Amino acid sequence: MARKLAQALGEFAANLRFSQLPTAAIRTAKTGVIDCVAVMVAGSVELPVQILRKTLNGLGGVPEATLYLSAERMPAPDAAWINGMAGHVLDYDDFARGHPSVVIVPAILAEGEALDASGADIVTAYVAGYEVWMELVTRERGNYQMKGWHPTPLIGALAAAAACANLRRLDAAAVTAALGLAAAQASGITASYGTMAKSMQVGKAAHTGVISVRMAADGMTALPEVLDHEQGFLRAVSPAGDVDVQSAPRLGERWHITERGLSIKRYPVCYCAHRAIDATINLISRQPLEAEDIDRIEVSLSRIHATILKNHRPTTGLAAKFSAEFAVAASVLAGNVGLQEVNDAFVTRREVQELMRRVTVVTNENYDPEAPGFALWDQVHVFLKDSRVLESEQVRHALGNAKRPLGTDDLRRKFLDCMAAGDQGFDAEQLFRDLETLEHLASCRALAARRRGPAAAAA
Amino acid sequence: MARKLAQALGEFAANLRFSQLPTAAIRTAKTGVIDCVAVMVAGSVELPVQILRKTLNGLGGVPEATLYLSAERMPAPDAAWINGMAGHVLDYDDFARGHPSVVIVPAILAEGEALDASGADIVTAYVAGYEVWMELVTRERGNYQMKGWHPTPLIGALAAAAACANLRRLDAAAVTAALGLAAAQASGITASYGTMAKSMQVGKAAHTGVISVRMAADGMTALPEVLDHEQGFLRAVSPAGDVDVQSAPRLGERWHITERGLSIKRYPVCYCAHRAIDATINLISRQPLEAEDIDRIEVSLSRIHATILKNHRPTTGLAAKFSAEFAVAASVLAGNVGLQEVNDAFVTRREVQELMRRVTVVTNENYDPEAPGFALWDQVHVFLKDSRVLESEQVRHALGNAKRPLGTDDLRRKFLDCMAAGDQGFDAEQLFRDLETLEHLASCRALAARRRGPAAAAA
Repeated sequence: MARKLAQALGEFAANLRFSQLPTAAIRTAKTGVIDCVAVMVAGSVELPVQILRKTLNGLGGVPEATLYLSAERMPAPDAAWINGMAGHVLDYDDFARGHPSVVIVPAILAEGEALDASGADIVTAYVAGYEVWMELVTRERGNYQMKGWHPTPLIGALAAAAACANLRRLDAAAVTAALGLAAAQASGITASYGTMAKSMQVGKAAHTGVISVRMAADGMTALPEVLDHEQGFLRAVSPAGDVDVQSAPRLGERWHITERGLSIKRYPVCYCAHRAIDATINLISRQPLEAEDIDRIEVSLSRIHATILKNHRPTTGLAAKFSAEFAVAASVLAGNVGLQEVNDAFVTRREVQELMRRVTVVTNENYDPEAPGFALWDQVHVFLKDSRVLESEQVRHALGNAKRPLGTDDLRRKFLDCMAAGDQGFDAEQLFRDLETLEHLASCRALAARRRGPAAAAA
Repeated sequence: MARKLAQALGEFAANLRFSQLPTAAIRTAKTGVIDCVAVMVAGSVELPVQILRKTLNGLGGVPEATLYLSAERMPAPDAAWINGMAGHVLDYDDFARGHPSVVIVPAILAEGEALDASGADIVTAYVAGYEVWMELVTRERGNYQMKGWHPTPLIGALAAAAACANLRRLDAAAVTAALGLAAAQASGITASYGTMAKSMQVGKAAHTGVISVRMAADGMTALPEVLDHEQGFLRAVSPAGDVDVQSAPRLGERWHITERGLSIKRYPVCYCAHRAIDATINLISRQPLEAEDIDRIEVSLSRIHATILKNHRPTTGLAAKFSAEFAVAASVLAGNVGLQEVNDAFVTRREVQELMRRVTVVTNENYDPEAPGFALWDQVHVFLKDSRVLESEQVRHALGNAKRPLGTDDLRRKFLDCMAAGDQGFDAEQLFRDLETLEHLASCRALAARRRGPAAAAA
């Protein structure tokens, strides 16, 4: 291609305006913002997030952007970092080839607040970030995670930079520089999985996005060939160098966001368990069961997903997020796998631990060509003590998947649940309505004003 | 090994005390601090550094640590970032399998100032960082840079974390966590070479070191297997996964710092050009020459070094740092390649541009088995118009190389030169004496007090 890749992405992100967005892109962007705000507020009370908040609070700084839309303010890069960590700490945030919203949204909400951006600006910046994300991540033919790289923060840093640069109305050359500066700071490893470091590094990508754009705005530069160079960023992070650095992007002609959408999680656990949960809950709702009627349960998963769901007898909420046995047992006992179930107290209940021991995973290699790693379907068989066998439906797409999207009521229910689990000082209903009509909001600073009580008044 | 690598490094860095250090280690650590302070103050006036300073100044924050030992104070992580960038922007800082001092020293000076650490604490922390650096970087059998990774910031983030953790007296488990948190944020790519992003990403590693330790001190944790895991950090950054994650480190038994030392640069250009500069200057000093007597000059380099010195007709100071032709021409015309020569004004002089055109690089593959990438020696031949040919000595180690160390006078001369090029408000002689006897300094805060005048008084 004539232009370098970073230049092509820079031009796109510099020039994208709200009027160019397809309606479906606006809708998906708003869904991403709503879902991210929900999980961010729910995650804000978690210990790992409070540790980062303490560390960064110790540095002080100008009060530019709020934490979790509350009244507490910090410099925008720090607020983006903490909010990004809060959004990922529950493993409850949306995804689409990685988890785009949890990096992009904290970055643009923080920078948008600092800049007093409008809701339409936020929506446009989200789409700029999403498109750059997909344009980069789909070029890799190998598997980042098998080499030890965590694609969400690694690619997310650049996507967040593109989004913030759009928000700041940088020119194309400056956006190109911001992408190079973000690539110079991009990081994140799979060795962090299952530890506090995982959500920390995801939040860090939002910080990198914000600060890279500010450096570029102040005149710092980088190499235009930074992405597609022989030893450029995409080759460096590519497990075996098998990455397409040749194809020119077709941004603005086709829209990744309308083609790929977002998958919204209905349960705060690894997505590999979601289809089995849907299958179990649907079965139970048709045929109510008591745990004592059950002899054993078989859950059928792809070998890859069974490997990822590595915890067979979890004893903590964190470990239970990666357990098929827990997912199925909680579905039977509670009829849900929500924030009320995925916590230490519920996981260690005697009846939960007891039923998990009667759940067996059977694996297959019957992969869905359209969804890497997924079996064509997941399914549950319940073997009763009276010798009957109950068979669930075969679930190909969990409810909430981009191919089977949530309705507004379901999204609203998740939003209100999350707000209740986090900071109960919000007028959550009003905040949901604000976000549903985000493109009409004159200033995104109004979002933080939806928090009631003395803290909001003090702000 | 029984303990995981991060745990072994964590124990070492947690427990290292000044009384355990060999005398030679103390001496080398002080040389590293002296040289880094010199190039940091010299680099502080450069535009790229001032851009980062502006960006981070915009965030505000507590005044914990000074910039370039001046009176201006910022949060310690930010001061480490800016000072690290200042220390690397001139390509004038020391090295030993990467550039250890420019990441470690800004981190520990900033955190040391925040903690009111003693000079002996600074020396000890330096050695902790240096040992961890070498323990990690020597495990890789491939070449980081050929894959696009810049080892100085990538490894430096972890070394700076080890150094700051030693300074903070974290226990072994917390240092292990800090290493994991630094690995989660480690970054830096070769695509940044030749741009502002290069020194920015080096400084960023110092920031990462400081902040990772503060997070760990506040209770954040990571995976103890983070470094040696099958998909851990060392495998992720390894070009082809050819990295030794098995050998137990022998830290505290043997000392990398006494075996490897530091190579100090006498010229602010790529080290690949240093032997040719020494050869040319020595030849000229024996046999004074005028440019008009010279027909042409041949400089002999390894193929790898000739590739790195990619700029054959540089027209800026930045580009001239990577030019054998400039290095030789400046040596002939000015008898030196110092800060007075490596700048746009000198590089664009007519006689410099003219003489560069008469310099030819000849390459060989006669590699030194002890120094990867280096030819056994570099040499210069000057062909005079009267048909005589002058042959320089064959230089295997530039003066300043760890195998041919600078004397105190030479180091002092570089220090005073650098201070004069940067902030002339310092009592540079006194500062040099302070650093020469750093282990006896009661508080490293005294260093910043060596700046004279109203700014220092205001602090």
